[in-house]
Amino acid sequence: MIIDKLINKIQELQAPIVVGLDPRLSQIPSHVKDPIYAEQGKTPAAAAGAIFAFNLSIINSICDIVPAVKPQIAMYEQFGPEGIACYRETVAYAKSKGLIVIGDIKRGDIASTAEAYSDAHLGKTDVEGEDMPIFDTDFITVNPYLGFDSIDPYLTDCEIYDKGLFVLVKTSNPTSSQIQDLKTADGRPVYAHVGELVDHWGRGLIGKHGFSSIGAVVGATHPAQGQELRELLPQTFFLVPGYGAQGGKAKDLVGMLNKDGLGIIVNNSRGITGAYQTQKYRADKKDFAEAAREAALDMKADLEAHL
Amino acid sequence: MIIDKLINKIQELQAPIVVGLDPRLSQIPSHVKDPIYAEQGKTPAAAAGAIFAFNLSIINSICDIVPAVKPQIAMYEQFGPEGIACYRETVAYAKSKGLIVIGDIKRGDIASTAEAYSDAHLGKTDVEGEDMPIFDTDFITVNPYLGFDSIDPYLTDCEIYDKGLFVLVKTSNPTSSQIQDLKTADGRPVYAHVGELVDHWGRGLIGKHGFSSIGAVVGATHPAQGQELRELLPQTFFLVPGYGAQGGKAKDLVGMLNKDGLGIIVNNSRGITGAYQTQKYRADKKDFAEAAREAALDMKADLEAHL
Repeated sequence: MIIDKLINKIQELQAPIVVGLDPRLSQIPSHVKDPIYAEQGKTPAAAAGAIFAFNLSIINSICDIVPAVKPQIAMYEQFGPEGIACYRETVAYAKSKGLIVIGDIKRGDIASTAEAYSDAHLGKTDVEGEDMPIFDTDFITVNPYLGFDSIDPYLTDCEIYDKGLFVLVKTSNPTSSQIQDLKTADGRPVYAHVGELVDHWGRGLIGKHGFSSIGAVVGATHPAQGQELRELLPQTFFLVPGYGAQGGKAKDLVGMLNKDGLGIIVNNSRGITGAYQTQKYRADKKDFAEAAREAALDMKADLEAHL
Repeated sequence: MIIDKLINKIQELQAPIVVGLDPRLSQIPSHVKDPIYAEQGKTPAAAAGAIFAFNLSIINSICDIVPAVKPQIAMYEQFGPEGIACYRETVAYAKSKGLIVIGDIKRGDIASTAEAYSDAHLGKTDVEGEDMPIFDTDFITVNPYLGFDSIDPYLTDCEIYDKGLFVLVKTSNPTSSQIQDLKTADGRPVYAHVGELVDHWGRGLIGKHGFSSIGAVVGATHPAQGQELRELLPQTFFLVPGYGAQGGKAKDLVGMLNKDGLGIIVNNSRGITGAYQTQKYRADKKDFAEAAREAALDMKADLEAHL
């Protein structure tokens, strides 16, 4: 089961880390992008080409030390069809290097529409009777605001194709409290109710480590809520954004672990892919892929020291 | 302001109707798709080509009687980059025919990511200092679960580029109650709090009809909640899905109008684009585009009779 594959890789590499592939053009060195612009002009297609070249080097540099990558589809969608093609190629290349791929798409829609998203991202799209994989990621993130029938099509594909979800429960951003923390009539916040729904939705997909392939997104920036959710949802694996750039610290994550020290995979995007632009790594005049590797190893050491 | 343009067109055509462009391949007649498959094979690109040919005829057939169309991006995304190219072409063609285009994308993410979505769908994407329009829709739908900082980038672009939003408040699907109807500590459901946020977010973009360019999605399948939301949110325009195939009736919409008979635009997808496949319209042996036009006129008459 995909959640076991993820946990096995985390244990093998001793690194509960997912590298976010959310490249901005300003993050891509001139020596990578200028040859592409020289050939194609400064077009959306050329921008997508530059991003793919950047991703390829990052993936090569970190694929033996982290279990997973998480491309954020918005950073590709912003360049139109060519950007989406780059997203697909990035997913395929990362998988070819043995990485587990979490597509950060945060889709959420009514059932008939969710089916189309699920076919595209987890399952296969039916083209006149022939089933074709389109993006074929291992996990995707989804938004629960529409309730069960917006999630059900993904659950079906998770079972058929051995895929997984991370459902938004308590996000890392500053205003996540506006809706997610609303206190309900029973005294508990909205996110606790959402967490219980996620637990319920995942009951049919529990792997051998005791975690479900249906996980939750819980921000590193909310340690108290993270601990509360761990107690409430012992079988739910957490994808944890917000470490590093957004302010989350390794010590904030302790409460999200179970007694076996399992239960989370922590995302870092700019902190790794943009490491070469920071004083710490630039000082060594490292190239961006080397700097990313070093930053990933430093993050591993930071997590090991605190978890 | 875009909301005034929409309301003016609704008044001029006496039709508070948006035609959903969510084509399924099973809905596209053989005489449209077979020539494309004969040339290209049954590929995702050919499927996208068939969908564009179908959309083009539908748009030509309804563009003088309805104010707007609403392509559902999932039905395009499922075919990968070529599907996204078809989405973009559909948006551009509909705009060229004078239609207002509501991109049904339901995106929702943290601020830095929302900026990328907003650039792509409402504003312009920066490619090395040059701002380029990518999808350039008039309105998009967005998901509020992450709160204000996930919406703010869109508000900025709505102001700069004269665009609008429809924020999910109370959706039409059966399980929308699971989270949206949770009763909060003050006795009101979550959707009422979300509605108030939407009202607040839209205060800076009120047009001459008294409605904001920041609207809400409120399902036709929940008439009581629709009326409650109209009273709570007098300046919020409603995009209303759920009429027809999902069970919503014209009489259910009365409570969502203000005293001037304004306040809603009602979506119909399959009921119009798939009309030729139903007994009522097939009986006349009409082609699909003619049947769509007739179904749109019947919907207009149905709304006029009840609203």
